[in-house]
This record gives sequence, C-alpha cells and structure tokens, in this order.
Amino acid sequence: MNSPEWQKIEVLADRKYPVYLGTSLEELGAYLPALPEKVEHILIISHQKVLDLYGGRLMKGLGDYRVNLLVVPAGEAEKSLERLSQLTTAALGYGADRKTLVIALGGGVIGDLAGFFASVFMRGVRLIQVPTTLLAQVDSSIGGKVAVNHPAGKNILGAFHPPQAVWTDFTTLESLPWLEVENGLAESIKHALIADPGLFNFFETQVDSIKQRDPLIWRTMVTRSSSVKVKIVSQDEREQGIRGLLNLGHSFGHALETEMNYRGVTHGQGVSIGIVAAAHLAGAKGFISLAEVERIKQLLRNYGLPIAIPGQNPQALLQRMQADKKNQGGRKILILPQGIGNAVISQDCTDNEILAAWQQVISG
Amino acid sequence: MNSPEWQKIEVLADRKYPVYLGTSLEELGAYLPALPEKVEHILIISHQKVLDLYGGRLMKGLGDYRVNLLVVPAGEAEKSLERLSQLTTAALGYGADRKTLVIALGGGVIGDLAGFFASVFMRGVRLIQVPTTLLAQVDSSIGGKVAVNHPAGKNILGAFHPPQAVWTDFTTLESLPWLEVENGLAESIKHALIADPGLFNFFETQVDSIKQRDPLIWRTMVTRSSSVKVKIVSQDEREQGIRGLLNLGHSFGHALETEMNYRGVTHGQGVSIGIVAAAHLAGAKGFISLAEVERIKQLLRNYGLPIAIPGQNPQALLQRMQADKKNQGGRKILILPQGIGNAVISQDCTDNEILAAWQQVISG
Ligand SMILES: NC(=O)c1ccc[n+]([C@@H]2O[C@H](COP(=O)([O-])OP(=O)(O)OC[C@H]3O[C@@H](n4cnc5c(N)ncnc54)[C@H](O)[C@@H]3O)[C@@H](O)[C@H]2O)c1
Ligand SMILES: NC(=O)c1ccc[n+]([C@@H]2O[C@H](COP(=O)([O-])OP(=O)(O)OC[C@H]3O[C@@H](n4cnc5c(N)ncnc54)[C@H](O)[C@@H]3O)[C@@H](O)[C@H]2O)c1
Repeated sequence: MNSPEWQKIEVLADRKYPVYLGTSLEELGAYLPALPEKVEHILIISHQKVLDLYGGRLMKGLGDYRVNLLVVPAGEAEKSLERLSQLTTAALGYGADRKTLVIALGGGVIGDLAGFFASVFMRGVRLIQVPTTLLAQVDSSIGGKVAVNHPAGKNILGAFHPPQAVWTDFTTLESLPWLEVENGLAESIKHALIADPGLFNFFETQVDSIKQRDPLIWRTMVTRSSSVKVKIVSQDEREQGIRGLLNLGHSFGHALETEMNYRGVTHGQGVSIGIVAAAHLAGAKGFISLAEVERIKQLLRNYGLPIAIPGQNPQALLQRMQADKKNQGGRKILILPQGIGNAVISQDCTDNEILAAWQQVISG
Repeated sequence: MNSPEWQKIEVLADRKYPVYLGTSLEELGAYLPALPEKVEHILIISHQKVLDLYGGRLMKGLGDYRVNLLVVPAGEAEKSLERLSQLTTAALGYGADRKTLVIALGGGVIGDLAGFFASVFMRGVRLIQVPTTLLAQVDSSIGGKVAVNHPAGKNILGAFHPPQAVWTDFTTLESLPWLEVENGLAESIKHALIADPGLFNFFETQVDSIKQRDPLIWRTMVTRSSSVKVKIVSQDEREQGIRGLLNLGHSFGHALETEMNYRGVTHGQGVSIGIVAAAHLAGAKGFISLAEVERIKQLLRNYGLPIAIPGQNPQALLQRMQADKKNQGGRKILILPQGIGNAVISQDCTDNEILAAWQQVISG
C-alpha cells in the first residue's frame, strides 16, 4: 500500500467537501481563496498546548487574514454550554460576523466544541477542521457530527455541521502521547474490522513499524482508515442506516466506561474491550469463526489494547446497555462483525447472548 | 378576497413543508400519522397562560400518544442557553429520544426557543410549529429560523430548523391582547408593503373590521400575510438575497429599540417607526412618491401604530445602526420600498440621507 505525498478525497454528503490528507499546516492559508465565499475574518479555536506546538506553523500561512485565537482549556468537560457561551462573548468581542471562518485546531474535543460553536453562531458560520490527534484525523473530523455534553449525558446537544474542508497534517501526530495514540488506534482497527480487510491485514503485519511511528506506515494507516470513515458517511451522513456500523464496540465500551465512572479505562480501551465482546457475540451467533475471534483479540493485544476486564459484574454491564440512546423501542441495537472487514446491524440479540459475551471478556 | 375554510400552502425550501392555515388545534393529532416517520413521544413546549387557554383543545387530539408538557415562563428573557439546558434536563427525564416530536405552542418566543431546542437536542428532532400570536402566525413560525439570545445580542445563537409543519388555528388569536396584535400588524403591513399591493389595499379598506377582529376578515389577513412570508422564504431559505427584504423597517426599528433600551417602545412600534423612516428615505431617493409616503403613514396611523418619535437624537440613532449585524464591510444595508407592494435592497444610502430620514420621523 502506497500513498502519494498528499491526496484529496471527497465526502459525498448532502453538500460535498474535501478531506486533504498529508497536507501541511503552513499551506492552509494558501488554500482559503479556493473557498466559494471570501474569508475576511478567522477564529482559531484550540488548546494552549496545541497552539504552542503548531500555532506558529498554521499562522505562517494566514498572514493575509485578520485572525483571532480563542484558547480553551483541555478536557472533555469543556464540551459544555458554558464554554459555548464564553466562546460567543469572545467571538463578538473580536467582531466576528456571518462571514467569519472558524478553524478547529486540535483533537476531537476541540473539533466537537468549535464545530458546535460554528454551527450555531449567527445561525451557522463556516468551519475548517484541522485535526491533530490520531482519533480526530481518522474519525471525529470527518462526517459533520458536532456536539457538547450535558450533565445528563455525552453529546446530548449537537448538530450536523459539515466543514468546508478537513485539513490533515500527519506530522502533528509526532507529538501525541502514546495513550492518545491508543484511542485513535482502537477506532482505526474498528474501521478495518467493519469495512477494510486489507487494512486489518496491514495492522497485523505492521505492528512494529506502527509502534515505532514509522512516518510512511502511519501515512498509509491514517489515509486508509480515514477513507473508511469518508466512505461510510458519504453513504449515510445522517446516520439513518449504515453509519451505525461505526458504533461497533461502542455500546459495550460505553457501558463499561459508565460502569467504571470513566475512571481507570480510556475511551480507546473501552472500545477495545467492546470490540472483543462484539466479536464473541458474533462468534456465538456464527457470524465469524472462532479463529477470527482469536485474530481480532491477537491484533488488539499486539497494540497493547486490553481484551479482558477481570472482576467486572456482567449483570451490571448489561443493565448499563439498557440506557443506550441507540436502542429502539426497548430493543438493543448491536453492531457485530461478519467476517473480517464486514459488519452488520443486529436487533435480535437476547440478553442471555449479551451476558455470555460479557462473561467471555470478564474471564478473558 | 375569499378564503376557504382551511388551506394548505407549501414552503418550497431545501426540504419542503406544509403550512396549514385555518385548521383547528383538535385536529393536529389526526394529522400526525401523515408524517413520514412514526411519532412515539411528544413534548409540548409552551407558556402556562397559553396552555390554560388552548392546551386542552390540543390534547384532545393527542390521546393516542405519550405526551409531556414543558412549561416555560413568558418573556423574551427565556430565549436563553440556561433555559435550553433546563429543557434538556426535563426532556431526558421524560425519556425523550431521537424520535421525539416537539410541538411549539405559543408566540415567537416559544417558537424560537422550542425550535432551537428541537434543532440541537440529540443533533435534531422533529418540530411542529403551532403559532398562537398574530406575529407568530404571519411571520416567525414560517421560514425555519430559530434562536436564543445571548447577553451580547438578540438571536446570536441559532439555526435553520424547518418544521415538519406549521399548524395555524386562527381562533387562538381571539384571546390575544391588543398590544400583541399590534406587533403582528406591523409585520403584516410590512409584508403588504414589500410584496403584496392587494393586501396593502385590503388593510386600507378594512380598518374597522380588522380593529373589531371580524373573524372572516382576519382569516383573509393572516392567510394573505403569511403567504407573503412563505413565498419569500421559498425563494431564499438561507437569507442569501431576497429574504433580506423582510428586514424592511427593522434596521431603523432595531436602532430605536436599543437606543430606548427596549423601554417605552414595543417591537411592533419600532417596526412601524422604522417603516416610516424607510419610506422617507425611499421618497428622498425617488423610489416612491410623496403621496405614497403619506399613504404608508396614514395606514399605520389608522391602526394606532406610531409614525413619529419626537425628542429622539438622530445622531445617536445613526450611531446605533453602525452595529447592525446585516451591515457588510462597513456599508449599511437598508431595505427601501419601491412603490407600494415592492421593495429593494439598497447598499448606497449615505449617512446624510439616513440622518434626514430620522429627522423626518422625529419632527413627525
Ligand atoms: N464528532 C465525531 O464524529 C466524534 C467521533 C469520535 C469521537 N468524538 C469526540 O472526540 C473526543 C475525543 O477526542 P480526542 O481523543 O482527540 O481527545 P482530545 O481532543 O481531548 O485530545 C487529547 C489530548 O491531546 C492533546 N493534543 C491534541 N493534539 C496534540 C498533538 N498533536 N500533540 C500533543 N498533544 C495533542 C489535547 O490537547 C488533549 O489534551 C470526545 O469528546 C469524543 O466524543 C467525536
Ligand atoms: N424566527 C423568526 O423568523 C422570527 C421572526 C419574527 C420574530 N421572532 C421572534 O418572535 C418573538 C416575539 O414573538 P411574539 O410577538 O409572538 O411574542 P411572545 O411569544 O412573547 O408572545 C407574546 C405574549 O402573548 C402570550 N400569548 C401567546 N399566545 C396567546 C394567545 N393566543 N392569547 C393570549 N396570549 C397569548 C404569550 O404568553 C406572551 O406573553 C421575538 O423573540 C422575536 O425575536 C422570530
């Protein structure tokens, strides 16, 4: 698998938009005149840490524009209505108007928060996603979903606000802590499992190069994994059907995260366990062979992702799944692998089958 | 001008939707099965006063559904992020999900607030507008604009969230205090002035019947006036061009409202003065004759709407217009009548011309 220096792929959604892969931060400024409407004012929303690392490179290309920075503290807690309100005050203070362009420079938290701000400020202004975490590059920057949290739940208030473009510079990943890499790897492996057997095989054969962050191998990994996301959201932007496949591992993982009160388990680790549980369930239903279940577990294990959660209570975990907002009319909607590189939406898993899957990951 | 018992007109926007005029609250329930997706849960958002008056009639038709009421105190101040957050908590408490239908039962405040809630809750749920003020029936319920205010300005955070349908029962207007009628009349007369000379003439000849709330005459007035709004937003849902015509009188009126700190002048009164100022300016530029300026003033006067604001400072008012969010690149965008029943967007009014128009309404 080879990729050119940089490439453009298109999200064929309601309004289509380009995802630029392997570009450089410095060049974004030179791209802006290509937008259909002139840019006069730019708001960059980011974390201080990310600005320290990459703000200078981005600003280099933006010399011709009036630019203001809005700095948001790091952390999931910042995806809030309170922060939205503060961003609004600051934006108005800088004279932001309907022609303002918002640039979200950071990971999924910045992408979701700045994206939601852009979707509602003056009934919607333009947005460019500049993802700087692996998770954001392969997943959250693509597809238009933006949101803030609410005390009662994650991503409860949000919108579909597709960006003008996604601008992905692979070199920003060099500074990413390994724990953050893990979060992105879990989603990338999920993409391979649901839609790209070749990528799955690539993950199996390139373990060392990926762990050593070989730039060429990462380039391929990110390109291929983000392409899966592009392909799926192009077919189903509003999650009426096939986009649901991206939730593989997430119903289980989310139950685990909430049961553990978001302590002691990262999102990536939750997804990893969730993928294993879904694999066991798929195995029990005959959707995949036991050898394939083992292949999935082995792959996750090779990347240091967890595949077992000794000590958890299966009944409690099942209970947590009752509250999943994707359930419909009391029925649990689960995504199950069907072979490697393919997945299905299943509505007919019984509580006993789900319990058995939890048992498997608990006993490891 | 005659209208049938009830009629349906369609907003031909990005996604088209019907406006039912002259229906009855009781019948909404029987209409719901006609929606493309099944309704399982309904949230009615309204004021206590409106529920006391009309909640029972609406509920009569909703016996087959699981319905919860969310009651919001009256007043413009309720269009806030804080109220949005409280609605979210309450909605989740009632088990609202992506299939929930929101019914906004009330005037423009409820329509804007409940509409914005529906646009962001779980990234967007369905909405039916049931307008119960004249302003909401002829104006705010149509066109998809929803918003909340922010300490820094009105309608700063919002969205375009077109409803599934607008359900208009004229009989709800019977209980409307006259001051609220005035707000709607100012917008209705504005509709006539920018796009419907026949309606303008109707307003001129039916003064007494309208003031006495003759139901048949009101039926015609609301139907005809809301049709103007439907026609305009059908051509330009996102306000890229012609929808801007609906702002006639509003740049002046808004300057007056802010200069007077929203005290001593209602929105309708501000619009009335604003229409007169725009008429004077149009007269000075030769867009309308002085006789037409007088016709406009006479019509507003006949409905008890103000046409002069003695004692105000024209320079201060001009200053207020500097901050109008519709201005572009320092230029003031003004809507001016061009004859009766027609209007244009003007970008080339000088400050002196605007000052002269203010002078005219100040000296009366
Ligand atoms: N919108 C979607 O479709 C979607 C999909 C998946 C996840 N998400 C959301 O994404 C969020 C998680 O995103 P995340 O995993 O990127 O976490 P994150 O945005 O919190 O970033 C993780 C940390 O890495 C730091 N960081 C960012 N870029 C860096 C870099 N290049 N070098 C060093 N440090 C860097 C950040 O400052 C932060 O502290 C969640 O809120 C989740 O809900 C959204
Ligand atoms: N979205 C849009 O396109 C748009 C257009 C114009 C105005 N607006 C907004 O509309 C709002 C003003 O709306 P409004 O003028 O309807 O005011 P409103 O919604 O505040 O209603 C006025 C009062 O009338 C009461 N009321 C409502 N229906 C009644 C009835 N049938 N009988 C007796 N009392 C009744 C209400 O409880 C309220 O106290 C503003 O916030 C404005 O920004 C929005």
